Amino acid sequence: MNKKLQVKVAKTAGFCFGVKRAVNLANEAPEKYPQQQIHTLGPIIHNPQVVNRLNKMGVKQVDRISELEQGVVIIRSHGITRQLTQKLEQHPDLTVTDATCPFVRRAQKIVAEMSEAGYQVLIFGEPDHPEVAGLISYGDPQRTLVISKPADIPAGFFTKPKPSRIALLAQTTQSQQLYNEIALSLLAIKGELRCFNTICTATSDRQSEALELAKSCDCMIIIGGRNSANTNRLHELCKERQRASYHIETAEDLQSEWFIDKQTIGISAGASTPKWLIDEVLKSLQNLS
Amino acid sequence: MNKKLQVKVAKTAGFCFGVKRAVNLANEAPEKYPQQQIHTLGPIIHNPQVVNRLNKMGVKQVDRISELEQGVVIIRSHGITRQLTQKLEQHPDLTVTDATCPFVRRAQKIVAEMSEAGYQVLIFGEPDHPEVAGLISYGDPQRTLVISKPADIPAGFFTKPKPSRIALLAQTTQSQQLYNEIALSLLAIKGELRCFNTICTATSDRQSEALELAKSCDCMIIIGGRNSANTNRLHELCKERQRASYHIETAEDLQSEWFIDKQTIGISAGASTPKWLIDEVLKSLQNLS
Repeated sequence: MNKKLQVKVAKTAGFCFGVKRAVNLANEAPEKYPQQQIHTLGPIIHNPQVVNRLNKMGVKQVDRISELEQGVVIIRSHGITRQLTQKLEQHPDLTVTDATCPFVRRAQKIVAEMSEAGYQVLIFGEPDHPEVAGLISYGDPQRTLVISKPADIPAGFFTKPKPSRIALLAQTTQSQQLYNEIALSLLAIKGELRCFNTICTATSDRQSEALELAKSCDCMIIIGGRNSANTNRLHELCKERQRASYHIETAEDLQSEWFIDKQTIGISAGASTPKWLIDEVLKSLQNLS
Repeated sequence: MNKKLQVKVAKTAGFCFGVKRAVNLANEAPEKYPQQQIHTLGPIIHNPQVVNRLNKMGVKQVDRISELEQGVVIIRSHGITRQLTQKLEQHPDLTVTDATCPFVRRAQKIVAEMSEAGYQVLIFGEPDHPEVAGLISYGDPQRTLVISKPADIPAGFFTKPKPSRIALLAQTTQSQQLYNEIALSLLAIKGELRCFNTICTATSDRQSEALELAKSCDCMIIIGGRNSANTNRLHELCKERQRASYHIETAEDLQSEWFIDKQTIGISAGASTPKWLIDEVLKSLQNLS
């Protein structure tokens, strides 16, 4: 093993504002509601290790509302559907703590307001992502659409003779460049295009810094849940610039052969990766070198 | 002179909807108000020959409101400022006929509504054009700005920490491509970008067809007032594709040496060029060949 292994950790690695807030709310819940069972509906954030730690503290994950009878339920950081929120709030024996990221909440409100005002709403995001499932539920089903690339825009948008009113927004962890491309392809449409840049700067800042690191390092390690969309995207982006890029969940996933003949290792981590997981990886890398 | 001079006239050459409407209103005015002096405040359209014909019919151009004492005043196709409109309407001895193009009127309303709603309004256009002077007058002077290229956007727009609310619209005769470039450079700003595509399709259709003609012809003749912004732009665009492109106002401006060794001549004309001026040019070209 190379004795001079130099490790650089991105300043923007790990918890974003919304995740930090959600995890704090979950950490405080057992003390705040000492007599009650604490639940999260779905994983509170997309990090299995954090979810596991919370479980040991008594914060239990359930996947269906039917599993909830009483106690406290925490709404996860990336939000749930409007219908589920209503069911939870109307439940007579449940106390609801909303840990939805305020930036996601803002995007949900935009979908609701634009639908209400009669706009055709376009959500740029991954159709299967829970945040997007939440967002779309706030829109009029007849006039709300999820697109993940310019080609997903229905051809009818470009042939309508009358001026259209279109509202565009994005899943908070999406790429600014693709958002721009989608907006650009809509600009020629006669009428109004209302663009809400709901992309969280934490995501773009993290991506930019990781890409800079990937340029200057021999190897990139991206730490985060395999179910975390922003971690996966961070890894894909780095991989394009630095072939020796690896996505791990914990220090145990590190493989010593990755570092043969390497001198500088760059580290970044998704928005839902806690500091202690990053620290464990750093410790393991020190032992390797 | 080449005996086989072939002339192709663009289908989109000449009067657009708004100009046709304005000239009709001016033509009808002397009959509608037989006992009154008819005026236009500034040229009704940007074509000296049409203005001259109307003058002979008794429709007199004045350049200042102080020159108006009584009678009928027609507001020109590209609009005037809000302040001037109010003065005209409040004048006890004037009857106002509004010949503002409905598409320009729509853009004026957008500036007023967006300013009222607190948006920073960006007007993409030529700062000195009368249409733009009209548009800007409907905005809050503190929050309404004219830009003619992406570099005109104040640097502060990109450094503001808080989400901004920006409304973008365009002078009706502007280029779609430059409009897209300006919108694109604003998309990364956090907050809301509300894009109103107020560019008239007549302008873009005319430009596209003239460019196609310029490709297939040996020489391009663009007919229109020297004070007509859309005619000047049409000529500049054609000149980029076909060096032998000439901007004329009337048939008298044609020079026979332009057509030496030429076989196909393409003709287009600005939105304010009447059919009779185009016909005169065609007649002169027939005599040449």
